Amino acid sequence: MTDRIRISVDAMGGDNGPRIVFHGASLALKERKNTSFVFHGREEELKPLLDEFPTLKPVSAIRHCDTVIAMDEKPSQALRKGRGNSSMWAALQSVKDGEADVCISGGNTGALMAMATMCLRPIDGISRPGIAAIWPTLRSDIIVLDVGATIGADAQQLVDFSILGAALARALFDDDQPTVGLLNVGTEEVKGLDSIKDAARLLSAASGAGFRYHGFVEGDDIGKGTVDVVVTEGFVGNIALKTAEGTARQVGTYVRNALTANLMSRVGALFAGQALDALRRKLDPRTVNGGVFLGLNGIVIKSHGGTDEIGYKSALGLAYEMARSHLIDKIDEGLRRFPVKPAEPEQTQPEAKPA
Amino acid sequence: MTDRIRISVDAMGGDNGPRIVFHGASLALKERKNTSFVFHGREEELKPLLDEFPTLKPVSAIRHCDTVIAMDEKPSQALRKGRGNSSMWAALQSVKDGEADVCISGGNTGALMAMATMCLRPIDGISRPGIAAIWPTLRSDIIVLDVGATIGADAQQLVDFSILGAALARALFDDDQPTVGLLNVGTEEVKGLDSIKDAARLLSAASGAGFRYHGFVEGDDIGKGTVDVVVTEGFVGNIALKTAEGTARQVGTYVRNALTANLMSRVGALFAGQALDALRRKLDPRTVNGGVFLGLNGIVIKSHGGTDEIGYKSALGLAYEMARSHLIDKIDEGLRRFPVKPAEPEQTQPEAKPA
Repeated sequence: MTDRIRISVDAMGGDNGPRIVFHGASLALKERKNTSFVFHGREEELKPLLDEFPTLKPVSAIRHCDTVIAMDEKPSQALRKGRGNSSMWAALQSVKDGEADVCISGGNTGALMAMATMCLRPIDGISRPGIAAIWPTLRSDIIVLDVGATIGADAQQLVDFSILGAALARALFDDDQPTVGLLNVGTEEVKGLDSIKDAARLLSAASGAGFRYHGFVEGDDIGKGTVDVVVTEGFVGNIALKTAEGTARQVGTYVRNALTANLMSRVGALFAGQALDALRRKLDPRTVNGGVFLGLNGIVIKSHGGTDEIGYKSALGLAYEMARSHLIDKIDEGLRRFPVKPAEPEQTQPEAKPA
Repeated sequence: MTDRIRISVDAMGGDNGPRIVFHGASLALKERKNTSFVFHGREEELKPLLDEFPTLKPVSAIRHCDTVIAMDEKPSQALRKGRGNSSMWAALQSVKDGEADVCISGGNTGALMAMATMCLRPIDGISRPGIAAIWPTLRSDIIVLDVGATIGADAQQLVDFSILGAALARALFDDDQPTVGLLNVGTEEVKGLDSIKDAARLLSAASGAGFRYHGFVEGDDIGKGTVDVVVTEGFVGNIALKTAEGTARQVGTYVRNALTANLMSRVGALFAGQALDALRRKLDPRTVNGGVFLGLNGIVIKSHGGTDEIGYKSALGLAYEMARSHLIDKIDEGLRRFPVKPAEPEQTQPEAKPA
């Protein structure tokens, strides 16, 4: 594919200001030449910054808007204040209008999810979008969702997340039948919540329709990479993600302390310098940055708000890959392949249980 | 304190048979001389094993019972089969009868919790027991509960877990006012489940009554050691614990691979050998082994079923410390100090909402 990938950027989102956004974009462009950018935000702030990155300038446009959503605004406040006129909304609107292939923001997650849902709308047949994390494991990268879009999920929503996650896995990992596991406590059939047990029944029946259902997985299966897609509701997924981040940082600190503990270990660290540098890069949380909003009519990537230009570059790379691999088509295909889900025209009965 | 600590052992519990139990006990005795043991299980199996450990023999007794609970039996099955006559039940009964100060089992967690609840009964004022994990962090060890006794918890149960966890922290860490945090997604007041928000209100009002309420904490606060006690319901706690275990193993593997990646890194690892050995011990999951059952009229320690003699020794050490520090008295004191909880005699109204 040689078409240019057009990325719509909420340049005002994030804790560290728009400078790291442009810096990150210039780095991303170096790695993926056929990218163009539309930056949304306050022109008077953004124009001088774009001037600092001459390579970026020919493939970039700036769209002015005054309103900026603060990192601590509640989603409802953000919608009232910024619907239609904020940099966040405008960045999403570019995707809706077909002007860009993918939208990225480092802003307030709750506000971004609320605006994205309102602007791009959920895909037909999906009641609620989820946020997917690309999670490095001992085997390869895997997908974990939902990591915090919403709290709680019934069986059908867990099935939706499975379809969405499997589509993302097919797009990212080039595997036609990725494995899907439901996160649970204990792998015995008897354990767990009813919603998870019901979802397991639905997924067992549908295994083969764009994914293979593996069964229940436990928390330690994530790091092992037991399955390609780990499905859970947003509260548990968010706690798991942050706990793993905390543990990785903790063990990283132990290693650093051990290798500076005494003269001998410092000499050892010198010898092992190259291998340890590779390890440091591997454990650098900036190398895997970006949550993928799944289930909307358009691709939205959420960068970590507190990241720097390196992290932002990673998130832009993820955005690029999502657009390049036609994620939305893969999801659409996934929904058509999944037999449990009744096709729209056959749905004659009114829904008995609204979500 | 010079009194002997008497440990009641379910010698038949665990994946690896009773041999590692006796071996672990002989190692534990070396570290803590004033310990005595009552081993419950099949005498014909246990007697020859005890003969193998001559130092253990003078401080040990064997109590015969025929029935053994299998690792995969459902709690209800286990109760039907083993109530009164299994090694697991007999080990608990020893504590109930005052013959031992603490009970330990490496058996089936669900069965042990069901039997412990039936045999020892919940403490007055506590509706459900929880399982607490001692969690190593960058600051010091902390306590996380519930890590899987039951799924779901209402606000009052989260408050109960806070009182129980704070009592354990006072017993273990010798701090009269340990800090308590509620595990949540995001630290903003707006987020999270209603049960957690309600518990936060109750705990804010009671801060100072045997603990200081810190507020909400996120998953990455666990590894940082932001608070002494992290409170959550059993499903989330279990996922967090296993996810952290998986991540620690994953990062440990990365480090091992980095230090054997090439000749230079292998030379480096030789130099740093001593520091890396210390790191290995720090990351060894066997050094922190044992969940503490909290909220019952007696102390019960659950050892990991798949551990070896080193892990079993650690669990016995934990059992010893729990008994030595008079955990049950500390919990009793915590319940009396906590003002939100109405004292028993004043509870004249019938309970509106049974748990």
